[in-house]
Amino acid sequence: MREEEIIEFIKRRLKLKQEGVVIGPGDDTAVISYNSKEYLLLTTDCVVENVHFTRKEATLSLIARKAMAVNLSDIAAMGGLPLYALISAGLPEEITRRDISQIINGLNYMADRFNVDIVGGNLTKSDALFLDVSMVGKVEKKYLKLRSGAKPGDVIFVTGTLGGSRLKKHLTFTPRIKEAREIIKKVPVSAMMDISDGLSTDLTRLAVASGAGFNLYLDKIPVSADAMKISKNKEDGIFHALNDGEDYELLFTVPLRYKEKVPVKVNGTDIHLIGEMTEEKSYKGISTTGKVIKIFPSGYSHF
Amino acid sequence: MREEEIIEFIKRRLKLKQEGVVIGPGDDTAVISYNSKEYLLLTTDCVVENVHFTRKEATLSLIARKAMAVNLSDIAAMGGLPLYALISAGLPEEITRRDISQIINGLNYMADRFNVDIVGGNLTKSDALFLDVSMVGKVEKKYLKLRSGAKPGDVIFVTGTLGGSRLKKHLTFTPRIKEAREIIKKVPVSAMMDISDGLSTDLTRLAVASGAGFNLYLDKIPVSADAMKISKNKEDGIFHALNDGEDYELLFTVPLRYKEKVPVKVNGTDIHLIGEMTEEKSYKGISTTGKVIKIFPSGYSHF
Repeated sequence: MREEEIIEFIKRRLKLKQEGVVIGPGDDTAVISYNSKEYLLLTTDCVVENVHFTRKEATLSLIARKAMAVNLSDIAAMGGLPLYALISAGLPEEITRRDISQIINGLNYMADRFNVDIVGGNLTKSDALFLDVSMVGKVEKKYLKLRSGAKPGDVIFVTGTLGGSRLKKHLTFTPRIKEAREIIKKVPVSAMMDISDGLSTDLTRLAVASGAGFNLYLDKIPVSADAMKISKNKEDGIFHALNDGEDYELLFTVPLRYKEKVPVKVNGTDIHLIGEMTEEKSYKGISTTGKVIKIFPSGYSHF
Repeated sequence: MREEEIIEFIKRRLKLKQEGVVIGPGDDTAVISYNSKEYLLLTTDCVVENVHFTRKEATLSLIARKAMAVNLSDIAAMGGLPLYALISAGLPEEITRRDISQIINGLNYMADRFNVDIVGGNLTKSDALFLDVSMVGKVEKKYLKLRSGAKPGDVIFVTGTLGGSRLKKHLTFTPRIKEAREIIKKVPVSAMMDISDGLSTDLTRLAVASGAGFNLYLDKIPVSADAMKISKNKEDGIFHALNDGEDYELLFTVPLRYKEKVPVKVNGTDIHLIGEMTEEKSYKGISTTGKVIKIFPSGYSHF
């Protein structure tokens, strides 16, 4: 079974029973009642040896940093602030004190930088090393952003640059906690999520969740220098920016009338306008030459 | 490195930064500020194929049930009620729709029985199947129980029977949520935890956390029928009850003057008085014949 199929299969079989659940599975985090002004955010994400990394390509410190960062990125995508983390680690028998030091250094680096407390965890033996992080965050009710709020006519923005993350950025990216909150405080964002699986996949998810379509201005997509390094030409670079994934940038929409209010830069990171939401539920890429392509999740196909 | 060594090594390197953390790593769950009357509880626990189970010995439904139950047992040990769960699943490539159905059935069985909402999760590929559950619970401040509160002279109790859990109980046990709360409401419990790693190990942990010692009345330990099945005689049965682990029963202490107030049964489960806390920080087992043994965590050694 494909991942999306499994997720749908599971979601159909879960029944939510408590009133306190504002948003269950399906967005970047769950949203839970907390107090009169804030919601709690709950999320979990895991990195597994030989699936997400090999110990040859990255230090354990960078792996642990990433395990924290992917969860922080989910909290950012909701407009929230992180609070607490639980770490469940699967460790091979042959793990050394130095390995564990490295893991702790990576976890602590992110915990300190984003003021998160690691309040508990669990250790288990495992042939393949894994780090599963669960994170609790909070968000003011007025700042909560979902992926389902985009309306036809809204303009689409993205932070930073996309593609080629596998070269380095997927291990060293900065979760957009600060950037998300600065943007939300400046403009009435209608939908927001992080780009973890590639712009083509995640923008489609945002459109589906919002019951809309989109026109993506292909030549406006900010292609990263690393994506260009592995590309023959600009078109190839755009392909990488669309489909590589692991960018952990913010994807968000804003009503057309607030377009000019969106800052060109937040916290040193550029913001680019890359498209518009449409009434018609089709997912189109449009180039400056007028060529139209159909955008497939993780795919790129001319028609 | 041994597990306890790794945990100590990690705990020394974690700095807690936020006021909201009432109890960090070290008890059955973390305890977090919530509202004027209640705390939040955060915990995580994982079951891994070929470490905690093989797919020959148990159905995936029972494995999933256990993954929920071990977390529920941690919430119970604090005196709390479960609220929300996140499921992080590592699934092998060859997983079938039937396998996934079984996993969901096991998760839902426990979620429905204990009124928990599964609000999110994560799927990843993994050679060995694992299910990592994180759980959020809550507890009224007045009912919170820690493992560190026992005083010399307090009497030690245990719910249910111990030992031989590997035969069946480790997959089918009932987390003692209801029992814990009934006990706490009836008597002023001074310390409480669940028995996951065996009475010898967990009672030692409770004693260390409380800065006390204990006399354990060996002949009063409730040995399970399954422990007797795998034992040659009563003494061997007691050995299993002390050291097998995975009992997921409650271990708790009560000031001596409330000894008679402790019910003999809660919610159909027997409660047994098994010892007393001592000023002297030694860990002793005493038999009715007057024989004294030293209790080692997971060990049993005459002296």
